[in-house]
Amino acid sequence: MKVSNRGQVPPFEVMQIVDTVATMRAAGHDVISLCVGEPGGGAPAAVNELASKLHAEQADFGYTSTSGLEPTRQALSDHYRLTYGVQIPAENFVMTAGSSGAFQLAFLAAFDQGDIVALARPGYPAYANILQALGLNVVDLPTGPAQRFQPTVELLEAAIKQHGRLDGLVIASPNNPTGTMLSAEELETLASWCQANGVRLISDEIYHGIEFVPERKGHTSWEYSRSSIVVSSFSKYWGMTGWRLGWMIVPDDMLAVVDGLASNLALCAPAPAQRAVLAAFEPDSLQEAEGRVREFARTRELVLGSLDKLGIIAAAPADGAFYLYGKLSPQVLAQFGSASVFCAAVLEEAQVALTPGGDFDPFEGNLFIRLSFAAGYHRVAEALDRVEEFLKRNM
Amino acid sequence: MKVSNRGQVPPFEVMQIVDTVATMRAAGHDVISLCVGEPGGGAPAAVNELASKLHAEQADFGYTSTSGLEPTRQALSDHYRLTYGVQIPAENFVMTAGSSGAFQLAFLAAFDQGDIVALARPGYPAYANILQALGLNVVDLPTGPAQRFQPTVELLEAAIKQHGRLDGLVIASPNNPTGTMLSAEELETLASWCQANGVRLISDEIYHGIEFVPERKGHTSWEYSRSSIVVSSFSKYWGMTGWRLGWMIVPDDMLAVVDGLASNLALCAPAPAQRAVLAAFEPDSLQEAEGRVREFARTRELVLGSLDKLGIIAAAPADGAFYLYGKLSPQVLAQFGSASVFCAAVLEEAQVALTPGGDFDPFEGNLFIRLSFAAGYHRVAEALDRVEEFLKRNM
Repeated sequence: MKVSNRGQVPPFEVMQIVDTVATMRAAGHDVISLCVGEPGGGAPAAVNELASKLHAEQADFGYTSTSGLEPTRQALSDHYRLTYGVQIPAENFVMTAGSSGAFQLAFLAAFDQGDIVALARPGYPAYANILQALGLNVVDLPTGPAQRFQPTVELLEAAIKQHGRLDGLVIASPNNPTGTMLSAEELETLASWCQANGVRLISDEIYHGIEFVPERKGHTSWEYSRSSIVVSSFSKYWGMTGWRLGWMIVPDDMLAVVDGLASNLALCAPAPAQRAVLAAFEPDSLQEAEGRVREFARTRELVLGSLDKLGIIAAAPADGAFYLYGKLSPQVLAQFGSASVFCAAVLEEAQVALTPGGDFDPFEGNLFIRLSFAAGYHRVAEALDRVEEFLKRNM
Repeated sequence: MKVSNRGQVPPFEVMQIVDTVATMRAAGHDVISLCVGEPGGGAPAAVNELASKLHAEQADFGYTSTSGLEPTRQALSDHYRLTYGVQIPAENFVMTAGSSGAFQLAFLAAFDQGDIVALARPGYPAYANILQALGLNVVDLPTGPAQRFQPTVELLEAAIKQHGRLDGLVIASPNNPTGTMLSAEELETLASWCQANGVRLISDEIYHGIEFVPERKGHTSWEYSRSSIVVSSFSKYWGMTGWRLGWMIVPDDMLAVVDGLASNLALCAPAPAQRAVLAAFEPDSLQEAEGRVREFARTRELVLGSLDKLGIIAAAPADGAFYLYGKLSPQVLAQFGSASVFCAAVLEEAQVALTPGGDFDPFEGNLFIRLSFAAGYHRVAEALDRVEEFLKRNM
């Protein structure tokens, strides 16, 4: 019987490595996983405490309204006012099943079959895979150190020259896999260019709050364009990946369409999480999240000082998030042939899970690895030692 | 700036009525809502207790594997063995964000742009709306009392004659909005016909367990065809709508495609719910669920005996689920013009929320109303009295 062609998207390789790690751990191996974008430690204590209390009271978690619970959307509106100094009505927030749920809604609401959406390469592979599954055409913007791995107006205009038009642009700051961030001026320039050129901007801000360089402090695209769609989540800064709660900020002209799609495609976002995250904005929870960011900062310093231990010759400037995207040395590449083979060997011999760059860049990614330093300082330090010894044995 | 055409799906009207009810209640009105497919009472106590305990322990709810936690999938496999006497490997279960998450994955995995999928009319509107948003063509199978509102081979063959081919069929038993069920023989006939004709069968089994007619006891399509996709959820029988946890049973030839799509579109289903539902299969939880089914049965008898109070002249046989789909009398239609106007007047004057049939059938639905009797015996009894008095005042 027929299986769809459009369903044949490449699986997100990181998730397959996660499965291998689980199998190795089940067999008793002490694997250090630096492959997944997942902070350890879980939700802030107050969020779990509120969830525990609600469940203990046998709260009836029925459907919420499609856009989400009003107090939660209001709390997000307040959070944006306090964090970015920007007033965004609660009505423009739509709660979603993680940022994943938001991307589908954003892409379906903004684009028709055959529309053209630009993405920075390297980038988060699910963007291209979801777009492809939904019948959209993806245009790569080839970025590198010269652009700090971020789109530029020059790259966008070159793409229009080549493809005739662009309907959308997805940006991510901080970016996955590189951790690079747009400055306020760069973000404003891109947002204004999109506005002027009728290109719908979708701004992935899921790593906001995890930022290391004061002069690139995160800005939201809604400071510069209320035609843009913001996508974010409680997964990273608040450490709540498995709860599957994200949100989008929806332009006024798209609210009805997003609501119509969400009422058919999702019904609502998980209700227990929507209620429990009211505790995520309490001072104690924010202090916990900030403590985690300080730990990421310390680990980042360690990793940036250990590139040679990893066989890396150059790395993207990790302004935010918790990733290092580094180019393997010619010696390592000569020995192993590709980042995929290198990562497989490191996982098997050194029991450290790294991600080969092919997930993020089908062209040059096999020269790169991504290391997530979200696992914590001591685990990352041990992983660096393991990889260093592995390289000594094998080179 | 452009908004997509395919995003212009009709919003699910029930969700809009839900919002009106919320506004009226906030203004102090005692509205009885019989409009939404939502059992009151919430999850079984043991499920909330387990969730409370896990959150109190500050469990780290990280991403699960894309298909879901192995113990949860194994528990479902055991549940199918005990309930239907059918052996389905845990590997064929994929946990999803409600049945909504499962439908998207099923439709994307099974069908390409332009493929043709048949649906019974009247039917759950989200099927057609999701299919349309994903670029698929919907063929209505016009059903009525003669077919007990279910597809038949005759209707399918007529559809093929008219449209040249069919790629898929969605069935629902018990059905929404009518509550009618397929017998074992009817289900087997449809499953075999789909298998023989290369038509992918998607079987919505979300109301399973809520069944009132012993000789139509629910059967799963996997008893008859392992090429079919089963979609179900913890929302209805276990009363966990807002938790957003469903599952699909995926044929072997689709497992890789579904996993690839899910790893990009969803990452995983909500982890706290995946762990808490391990308590849903305990004897106490099943007893609670069965107690709720007995309450639905009692309320169903009350409703079936009160059709004239509602201005209904004929109703579909509600074999399962918790819906009555009834045709308004010529007198009521003459007075109000349509089910929509009637329902709006009842909501405003009698403060009872009913659903006009247009949501389920754009052609004849405005002659019908759907009443959900999930709200409980006493509330439904009071609602029937209110509507009776409303009709006396207005006719």
